[in-house]
Amino acid sequence: MAMVLNRLTALDAVRMLQRRELSAVQLLRACFARIEQREDSVHAWAALDKDAALKHAQALDNGPITGPLHGLPFGVKDLFDTQEFPTTYGSAIYKDHRPEADAAAVTLCRQAGALVAGKTVSTEFATFQAPLTRNPHNTAYTPGGSSSGSAAAVADYMVPFALGTQTAASIVRPAAYCGVVGFKPTFGSIPRDGIKSLAPSLDTVGCFTRTVGDAGLVASVLMNKPELRRLDYDGPPRIGIYRTPQWRHTLPETRDAMAQATETLARARAVVQEVDLPPECCALVQLQSDIMTYEASRSLGLERERHASQISPGLLALLQGGDTIDEARHQANLQRSRDLYGRVSGWFDRFDVLLTPSAPGEAPFADQGTGDPLFGRVWTMFGLPCVHLPFATGPHGLPVGLQAIGRKGDDHRLLCIAKWMHDKLRPQG
Amino acid sequence: MAMVLNRLTALDAVRMLQRRELSAVQLLRACFARIEQREDSVHAWAALDKDAALKHAQALDNGPITGPLHGLPFGVKDLFDTQEFPTTYGSAIYKDHRPEADAAAVTLCRQAGALVAGKTVSTEFATFQAPLTRNPHNTAYTPGGSSSGSAAAVADYMVPFALGTQTAASIVRPAAYCGVVGFKPTFGSIPRDGIKSLAPSLDTVGCFTRTVGDAGLVASVLMNKPELRRLDYDGPPRIGIYRTPQWRHTLPETRDAMAQATETLARARAVVQEVDLPPECCALVQLQSDIMTYEASRSLGLERERHASQISPGLLALLQGGDTIDEARHQANLQRSRDLYGRVSGWFDRFDVLLTPSAPGEAPFADQGTGDPLFGRVWTMFGLPCVHLPFATGPHGLPVGLQAIGRKGDDHRLLCIAKWMHDKLRPQG
Repeated sequence: MAMVLNRLTALDAVRMLQRRELSAVQLLRACFARIEQREDSVHAWAALDKDAALKHAQALDNGPITGPLHGLPFGVKDLFDTQEFPTTYGSAIYKDHRPEADAAAVTLCRQAGALVAGKTVSTEFATFQAPLTRNPHNTAYTPGGSSSGSAAAVADYMVPFALGTQTAASIVRPAAYCGVVGFKPTFGSIPRDGIKSLAPSLDTVGCFTRTVGDAGLVASVLMNKPELRRLDYDGPPRIGIYRTPQWRHTLPETRDAMAQATETLARARAVVQEVDLPPECCALVQLQSDIMTYEASRSLGLERERHASQISPGLLALLQGGDTIDEARHQANLQRSRDLYGRVSGWFDRFDVLLTPSAPGEAPFADQGTGDPLFGRVWTMFGLPCVHLPFATGPHGLPVGLQAIGRKGDDHRLLCIAKWMHDKLRPQG
Repeated sequence: MAMVLNRLTALDAVRMLQRRELSAVQLLRACFARIEQREDSVHAWAALDKDAALKHAQALDNGPITGPLHGLPFGVKDLFDTQEFPTTYGSAIYKDHRPEADAAAVTLCRQAGALVAGKTVSTEFATFQAPLTRNPHNTAYTPGGSSSGSAAAVADYMVPFALGTQTAASIVRPAAYCGVVGFKPTFGSIPRDGIKSLAPSLDTVGCFTRTVGDAGLVASVLMNKPELRRLDYDGPPRIGIYRTPQWRHTLPETRDAMAQATETLARARAVVQEVDLPPECCALVQLQSDIMTYEASRSLGLERERHASQISPGLLALLQGGDTIDEARHQANLQRSRDLYGRVSGWFDRFDVLLTPSAPGEAPFADQGTGDPLFGRVWTMFGLPCVHLPFATGPHGLPVGLQAIGRKGDDHRLLCIAKWMHDKLRPQG
């Protein structure tokens, strides 16, 4: 029984918890049994405290129903401050860091009745160095990054949901590699207080779940939008298939997934049509990279000044790249991003969502980093809501999927349509 | 004038040096002028000592001609012990390490009249973490690894040659990304004394140069084979085109390079034919990875025991992966590698060389690691001599090429044919 409870979706678990058919302690014990069984292989967690979590669960069981996440254990990327756990931001510089308060997003989840199971592994300051975490489907492969532990923990049925952040592709890519739903909402719609900043124009809080419905549930709390708990949609939607100028980087499994999605969704009577981009938009990936690099080199100024020897050479080089950009050029880059967004935002008059790659293909080998964030960068820069949908399998048996992109601010509609599409695309319906 | 001397090939420079038409001090000053101009962008060097190098150059100018490398400055990957320079093996654990003697390969070059210009950046213990070094063609991109600084320094005309090592693809891949010739000879043909060991069944010393002739010159000293200084070959050779089971990972620029090479070499009357592999050889890449991981987890035992906190999470995870393999399985892996080699060695009765990808395509962005060693692993495992030939350009203007693989022990024939092919493939002939 214990090994089944940890596989419940968040929505199913919450329904049972609220009817007191399931206790928070039962659910937590099932999750910890899974963690104890698998953590030595997966390394999803940066910090765990089973006893403290059990006390919180006990208190929830003894008290009244507190909110829509009542009794759900969750993982928190180690980029978010937590009072009860060390918070390293993925860096040795902060190995003994104990913040005085929880990040706002953690607090919102706790206030809605969820309890922190532990901190999940983040790459170094949410950048690109390979983490200790492995892909739970096959530990020879990377889980992706930077929200590596959050994606792996949810994929491996250790917790029903986990928090992450995305500055380039740090939610969508690990979701793709681990085969879970990853939701990055519209920029600015979830408070970032208490999160280690990497690039303030881009950093966005989001979540990992195993279904789109669960993403709606968690986001309803984080975004203060109860309507996200209902994702009814009759369809059919108008779907723009967008291959991007980086299509040459896709592996055959991604091309197959795109072909399969096009066919399946068209058969479900969606209007499915190829979209293209004005030619001046070809440098979008580089533009996002420049914005991110410049802002990161400023955000991590103190760490560079005082602890450069504890920063990885790869990150140091990235930050030095940021030094070559001046404020005037950065402002011009931000303006250019806004201008280019103006050129493409008309997409959402013609289409309800865009469907586009989340990653080149299956996860690469773990020892070569966290994979390429190429396919996430542009959407993060534009601040658009994105949700990754896992539905296919690659040549090594690892998960493959695509992401759906919605109109800025219309996260509800995006999730509704994403759920509709996911129901059609998943083998089990 | 100073800016021209540093662009001389090793063979041209040595010819002038031996005739005393060029002094070692002149050449070294030109190289250091280039280094001073570019090092802030490229970060090829882990340690430099201009004054010490100038003293050596002066002594060479004042004394007799010492050997075939007389007066050539060279870069030494920071995985080789050097008495006059700190030797970090790319790790903070060894940041204050000063070996008592030079590695054997360094000594051989010095005894042939070359002088160490400095130590070049190695990734952490020659593994996969992104280094500080950038691709000299465009500093937004990686130079590849693990011999990152050696490849970048030679490509950027900072030195005429540099030493490197290859355990997976650490010579061929950075050579490909930086657009230089990278030569990994037959396993065991250059002494490894004084090199930090990663995987003793695989670790191989080699060199970076800008021409195949220069690779022959340097290798003639390292391998004690004077015949490598003459690469005469009338041709035409029989060339096997081998796409590998990993062809799906190639980007269009690599496929274009393969098509171009096939056409050009056939037009030069080479016998060019596609080769395939027995189906049981499909897991070769994984086999190399298992052998490497197991041996690395043992080679770095002391560092893990005493300094785990200073090892990057990515490398720690790789080493933990090695712990899951036991000695019996490792011995079976080595036996399997020998058996499979027996299945393919007949290739070299039908073909003089194989032509195969060196890397998926152009260099990836610098912040995402050093690229995929996929296309180097098998040849290193089989111990075959490999030489990367740069001759094409990718969509971002970065170098692209292919590697030629030769019969085990017949490095001379491989270099002769590689030079013949390179003369046909390079735009300038």
